[in-house]
Amino acid sequence: MVKKHIELRSVRITDGFWKRKQDLVRETTVFSVYNRFYDTGRVEALKCDPSNPEKRHYFWDSDLAKWIEGVAYLLEKEPAPELERLADAMIADIVANQREDGYFNSYFQTVETDQVYALRKNHELYCAGHLIEAAIAYKRATGKDLLYRCMLKFADQIDRVFRVEKSAAFLTPGHQELELALVKLWRESGERRYLELAKYFIDERGSEREREMAGIKPEQLRYAQDHLPVREQFTAEGHAVRLLYMCCAMADLALETNDEALKTACERIFRNIAEERMYITGGLGSNCNFEGFEENYHLPNEIAYNETCASIALCLFARRMQLLSEDPIYANVIEREIYNGVLSGLSLDGKAFFYENPLEIDLMSPTHQSGGRQKLHYPIQQRVEVFSCSCCPPNMTRFIPSLGEYLYTVEDGGIRVHQYMDSETREGELHLIQKTDYPRSGDVEFHYQGSATAVSFRIPDWCRSYTLSQNGRPVEAEQVNGYVTLPMANNDRVSLSFEMPVTFVEANPAIRADAGKCAVMRGPVVYCAEQVDNAELRLYDFRASEDGAKTEESEQFYFPTVTLTGEVREDGRTLYAAERFRRRSAELKLIPYHAFANRGPSNMTVWLLQK
Amino acid sequence: MVKKHIELRSVRITDGFWKRKQDLVRETTVFSVYNRFYDTGRVEALKCDPSNPEKRHYFWDSDLAKWIEGVAYLLEKEPAPELERLADAMIADIVANQREDGYFNSYFQTVETDQVYALRKNHELYCAGHLIEAAIAYKRATGKDLLYRCMLKFADQIDRVFRVEKSAAFLTPGHQELELALVKLWRESGERRYLELAKYFIDERGSEREREMAGIKPEQLRYAQDHLPVREQFTAEGHAVRLLYMCCAMADLALETNDEALKTACERIFRNIAEERMYITGGLGSNCNFEGFEENYHLPNEIAYNETCASIALCLFARRMQLLSEDPIYANVIEREIYNGVLSGLSLDGKAFFYENPLEIDLMSPTHQSGGRQKLHYPIQQRVEVFSCSCCPPNMTRFIPSLGEYLYTVEDGGIRVHQYMDSETREGELHLIQKTDYPRSGDVEFHYQGSATAVSFRIPDWCRSYTLSQNGRPVEAEQVNGYVTLPMANNDRVSLSFEMPVTFVEANPAIRADAGKCAVMRGPVVYCAEQVDNAELRLYDFRASEDGAKTEESEQFYFPTVTLTGEVREDGRTLYAAERFRRRSAELKLIPYHAFANRGPSNMTVWLLQK
Repeated sequence: MVKKHIELRSVRITDGFWKRKQDLVRETTVFSVYNRFYDTGRVEALKCDPSNPEKRHYFWDSDLAKWIEGVAYLLEKEPAPELERLADAMIADIVANQREDGYFNSYFQTVETDQVYALRKNHELYCAGHLIEAAIAYKRATGKDLLYRCMLKFADQIDRVFRVEKSAAFLTPGHQELELALVKLWRESGERRYLELAKYFIDERGSEREREMAGIKPEQLRYAQDHLPVREQFTAEGHAVRLLYMCCAMADLALETNDEALKTACERIFRNIAEERMYITGGLGSNCNFEGFEENYHLPNEIAYNETCASIALCLFARRMQLLSEDPIYANVIEREIYNGVLSGLSLDGKAFFYENPLEIDLMSPTHQSGGRQKLHYPIQQRVEVFSCSCCPPNMTRFIPSLGEYLYTVEDGGIRVHQYMDSETREGELHLIQKTDYPRSGDVEFHYQGSATAVSFRIPDWCRSYTLSQNGRPVEAEQVNGYVTLPMANNDRVSLSFEMPVTFVEANPAIRADAGKCAVMRGPVVYCAEQVDNAELRLYDFRASEDGAKTEESEQFYFPTVTLTGEVREDGRTLYAAERFRRRSAELKLIPYHAFANRGPSNMTVWLLQK
Repeated sequence: MVKKHIELRSVRITDGFWKRKQDLVRETTVFSVYNRFYDTGRVEALKCDPSNPEKRHYFWDSDLAKWIEGVAYLLEKEPAPELERLADAMIADIVANQREDGYFNSYFQTVETDQVYALRKNHELYCAGHLIEAAIAYKRATGKDLLYRCMLKFADQIDRVFRVEKSAAFLTPGHQELELALVKLWRESGERRYLELAKYFIDERGSEREREMAGIKPEQLRYAQDHLPVREQFTAEGHAVRLLYMCCAMADLALETNDEALKTACERIFRNIAEERMYITGGLGSNCNFEGFEENYHLPNEIAYNETCASIALCLFARRMQLLSEDPIYANVIEREIYNGVLSGLSLDGKAFFYENPLEIDLMSPTHQSGGRQKLHYPIQQRVEVFSCSCCPPNMTRFIPSLGEYLYTVEDGGIRVHQYMDSETREGELHLIQKTDYPRSGDVEFHYQGSATAVSFRIPDWCRSYTLSQNGRPVEAEQVNGYVTLPMANNDRVSLSFEMPVTFVEANPAIRADAGKCAVMRGPVVYCAEQVDNAELRLYDFRASEDGAKTEESEQFYFPTVTLTGEVREDGRTLYAAERFRRRSAELKLIPYHAFANRGPSNMTVWLLQK
């Protein structure tokens, strides 16, 4: 058996934090996003009516495709007739308007109709990729293959134009996405040419020929990872989402074609991100100008871009890497992302989104005169229900329902448990139940039914102390490469208990932005301080003591809030004083970072002065 | 006797730090600046030759005027035939080209000749003001009054056009400067109309009529202090140099006309600056977009603008305030400026200048992609010999030679000693000698000759401990309002000894930029750490202990260097770690802040992590 994840259709999240989030998406978010898409004209645009004067954008098809994909994942679990009806309507419009030769794009078929495949930046292949992913997911969830057959035609057209005739104005997609979708299409259809096309695009990227044809300027090379052949790219450069979608395809191809060079590049890029270019929240891509990665350890907190889609994309990439490698880094990073940098993109009420996810907010900052010699950009301070570029909301609605696919991988040797979520999994003989309220609680109970096998449990990288028992008896098992492995027999029960103290975390000394500071975590959850919880106390002046931290249950935030003891300085008139300003004891209340900005505009910080 | 400063001609700086700086200006800087002015075509431009195709700028006359003024102050002390020759040549060109009606401007008489007094922003009156100051200084120093008589005509022309006819397109100067020059002209000439004109400009500023005529947009009001009548301005707003030159005139007028409202506005603006909007170095004006003040306590270190001219201008303002008030804040701020924020504008070799004076440098910062949504501006990292806008160099060459005028004020009650510099002062019966190497040493010796009087000595605001003796006997004198007063008789000797430990200074808790940090001072001198002295040590990660600081004499920097003990964190691979990174003891070498960036590009910081 080739190593694979246990599929979404086999895994049901049954309780706990993620059940609540999946319910929120199912009951609220997916409808809210549809309504915003409808209001903005995206849905209507699928009718490709040139007389419709509404201003469109050429990436709209991808927004709707991702929405359809999310609906498909929801339908895997439970019927949702209204959502299915809305999706079917969109699909009908797409099918009805697909060009004879297979091409589809609601923008270029109605607006700028002479620009088909004229400019690499026009996102045509990006939209195609998301439509392909949607088509496959929808067929698998519903059995309906209308869109799927459409997309086979589209993929064939792309193959003709780009690989056979090379008649487009550019060789490879601008924004990567199609490559990973083509691998999915190969896996679904069995038609090898889709894998070959994906490989072709990956192999051509970074070639001189590509650069010349597409007229890419030297200073633009890194932006879309055109600076080197991908097998020679060992650091995370350029636009984060583009890079990470490309890495997904590279990882897929590495697996499908046993390409060691691709695998190595993936491992090195991943490690560069996780060990040198990632925020503690999992945020990725510090620079707002190109939405991407800067040099190692340059991680400013207040102006951090940290696109929500990038955190989701890292999960997509990491999940694929789990099939290539036993390295625990992948599951650990996924965990960091889902509880922090991904989730901060969604409001607690499920209706609003952040595109950017900073680690510090000062409400006064945007009021300073900006523009001319120095133009400072700050993320918005409150989530909004729709953006003109709305990639993050449907990414959220397709990602959260798909989380079941992140729990387990299986291979001949056994099962690996990567994530802890209350769930029930059935596949063939296997019936595996996780009962847990992780990470509100550190306890996880497994009930295994199936043939004798080995089950490996990830010990989270933040965990310093845990207990393990099997069938009621404590077990000592050696932790190998971040996992402990137990032999399992039918009906075995395993209990894990991860100790979850409030922990103070330091950043690597090479990160200037965090020098002299600490961040608070409890299990995988990163915390932050918001002004709204802390009266007039100066968040940036609070020195945190590592003693005396308390937790308090919270209905509102699900995870406990944390109260730190420490000190702040009292007000004074003197501007610069040789005597220290007087200190007084103070407490600071922290909430989970992902829940920031849900109670109105507020100063906020993740990093706190160390005592 | 009306309170006045003992004039420059009566005071000779004889030794110590400022003698060296004045010699440097006399022997090197003033020539270096002239050469750069010559190379750039400024000197030639005075010939007003329209056939000369060199690109000019309309503020060039002010650069040359300030240079002439500086030469005049040098000539007060010692002959300098070559400088006098160069100045005379320039003056001859000005006189030869002055328009019949008195107007002079080398730009508008050759380029854009139809734009005389057409746009407020064109700096015509600004240039006139500096020419007037130069003319008065030159006449007083040399007896030559060619330029002076010229400028009387020019002032009369301005009076006619602006106050009598009101025929210009605007009511008041754009960049303030002329107002303070007109007060000087009144004092030199005895002609009251010049005082009246200065008052007229000050009174009209911020009027609605002015705003309409000059077409000032609402968002532009604060920039040139047009937002309110000046008597209602109580905070420092807008462009720093413009504001401070205006305040000079306001203070002059307050004194000359007994205007309490002007005095109050001056006091409040000064206090707002010194207590809420000033950097520890005396740097002023944090925002590079409009070269001016932002809200209270917003003092970012790395992007601080801190124009050298603004620090000089605060001294010009503070000196005038000393005639209106006994408040020690004025002399204390002047001291902070001359040893830090002013002096950092000049390289140690006397040839190169900084326009901007940041408190932190990270060499990597300008390498980050900038532009588009976020454009970050960083000050240049090395001084240069000339700028296209070259106001700071001649400001330096006129300010440093004028320092003798900052030492003493006299009135019927006695003499007040504001600054400590090795000097000899003769005026009438008075003969006062200061022997000192302040602030390299804290000891100052006075030898007084003259009639019986009272002498008040400033106790610097940073000083926590000092001794005082008179004629060899220790004296206890009550410090009143920052000064101690002793009765003085002919031939009396007084010794002061200010204790000068290495001091750790905190910033007001309201200053977010400096939270958790400390700065080092010794006496009035602020220190900084440069990478070039500290190998690979991460300056931003060094936690300073307040014990074990050592000083070491330094020929290169004149003031001792300071070595701190503390700790830094060792390198590690982990990006975020619950265990603290290992610390090791380390030392950090500091130099006087004003000497930064003299040894090649280097990371630098004033503020250090507190232990």
